[in-house]
Amino acid sequence: MAAQAVSVLITGANRGLGLEMVKQMVEGSFTVGKLFACCREPGGPGAEALQTLAKKHPDVIVVVRLDVTDLCSIKHCAQQVGSVVGTGGLNLLINNAGMLVKATLQETSSEDMQNSFSTNVIGPMNVIKEFLPHLRAAAKASGMPGMSSRKAAVVSIASFLGSMENVKQSYVLFSAVSYRVSKAGLNMLTLCAKEELKTDEILFSLIYPGWVRTDMGGEEGEIDAPESVKGMLSVMASLTEEQNGAFLTYQGSTLPW
Amino acid sequence: MAAQAVSVLITGANRGLGLEMVKQMVEGSFTVGKLFACCREPGGPGAEALQTLAKKHPDVIVVVRLDVTDLCSIKHCAQQVGSVVGTGGLNLLINNAGMLVKATLQETSSEDMQNSFSTNVIGPMNVIKEFLPHLRAAAKASGMPGMSSRKAAVVSIASFLGSMENVKQSYVLFSAVSYRVSKAGLNMLTLCAKEELKTDEILFSLIYPGWVRTDMGGEEGEIDAPESVKGMLSVMASLTEEQNGAFLTYQGSTLPW
Repeated sequence: MAAQAVSVLITGANRGLGLEMVKQMVEGSFTVGKLFACCREPGGPGAEALQTLAKKHPDVIVVVRLDVTDLCSIKHCAQQVGSVVGTGGLNLLINNAGMLVKATLQETSSEDMQNSFSTNVIGPMNVIKEFLPHLRAAAKASGMPGMSSRKAAVVSIASFLGSMENVKQSYVLFSAVSYRVSKAGLNMLTLCAKEELKTDEILFSLIYPGWVRTDMGGEEGEIDAPESVKGMLSVMASLTEEQNGAFLTYQGSTLPW
Repeated sequence: MAAQAVSVLITGANRGLGLEMVKQMVEGSFTVGKLFACCREPGGPGAEALQTLAKKHPDVIVVVRLDVTDLCSIKHCAQQVGSVVGTGGLNLLINNAGMLVKATLQETSSEDMQNSFSTNVIGPMNVIKEFLPHLRAAAKASGMPGMSSRKAAVVSIASFLGSMENVKQSYVLFSAVSYRVSKAGLNMLTLCAKEELKTDEILFSLIYPGWVRTDMGGEEGEIDAPESVKGMLSVMASLTEEQNGAFLTYQGSTLPW
């Protein structure tokens, strides 16, 4: 029996890891029914590659406007998604949109802190809250026992830099204080969501994509986006209740908090 | 030889744990030269107990206006403190001011998240940044080797609820999502500060006061403020380089991240 097609939503899907996830998903690494590829400006020059891809897969990819720092746009996006998925709900929500400010503590401003926190923590929180009815619908509709990314799951793209245990070894190379603080906050948010929503059978996990050669990761990155995404999609596909609340790398190993 | 008198600054010193710290410090548990007791409204009804205490110890306690969410007030306070301590600097800075919103993820608004983050993370960050020249001055002036709270240290009041490892066991009783996220962020901020400023010989540590019967902790708290503060001051007095970046309880044991 073929796997049931799932509905997936990805934020920040117009470039970098988000765009690569859309590519690999429609190429068949996930059996995707509908793939909501969200970005801030679907009509802008930064979304041309995504739009081109969407034209090749018009039955699968739905490009939707979503700015995670704008609650109205999240609510509007959730309505649009709801009108497509109906009672089948949304199976997999990937909080991929994020921002990085590279600055030491002494260079970091209140605004850097606020912006990083709004995009990397409050954004995912509001996305989770607004899509919760669709995630619950998917959990109910699936009929499968336990938890999985084919049933109802939220995967948030996390960072090695959000690990407290890793500050000592990595601070000299990457200070990025506002980013580190926001990613630690995202980890905590995810653990809270996991506890609060476990009876709804919605799985939450954090996946670190590795240090990737993207606009955010820079040219010095250790791996390229296809390798990272291949690993992350494999990890996502294998998630079970045991990984609920886990902080994993794209290779499936566990990171310390 | 008697211990050298140190200069100390406490934020949120008008009530709860902050006020109790001022009380116990002037009663002699720390050999304090100058004690800067900061609060948002030194002339308001909420600061009467602090003002009464200050009148009894006019040579030690200096009540200063400080709102950690207002960068101008932090800068102004740092100037005032600098004019008193001069090249001797500030030995111990206690980030005690904080706020708690008790709400589940589903009840938490963007504003709850922003307010908690501003008060509990950006506030301490700006306080550290603005008082850094005085902390550096103290480290230089002390002449002591290594690190200690009598030389140059920042102690931030942390929480059990900011521990990732403890979410599972405590979430049912205390959701407090915005508080948890902000306290995890404060932990990360502290670890970054520790790495960035270790060559300045400024010690950073996080101390959890226990679940205390204060306005914030509520009546169900497990201990009272005097017991908590007695423990915390004892821990602060014993801090050495080994505890740089540590996450400790008021009894001196280590908490997991």
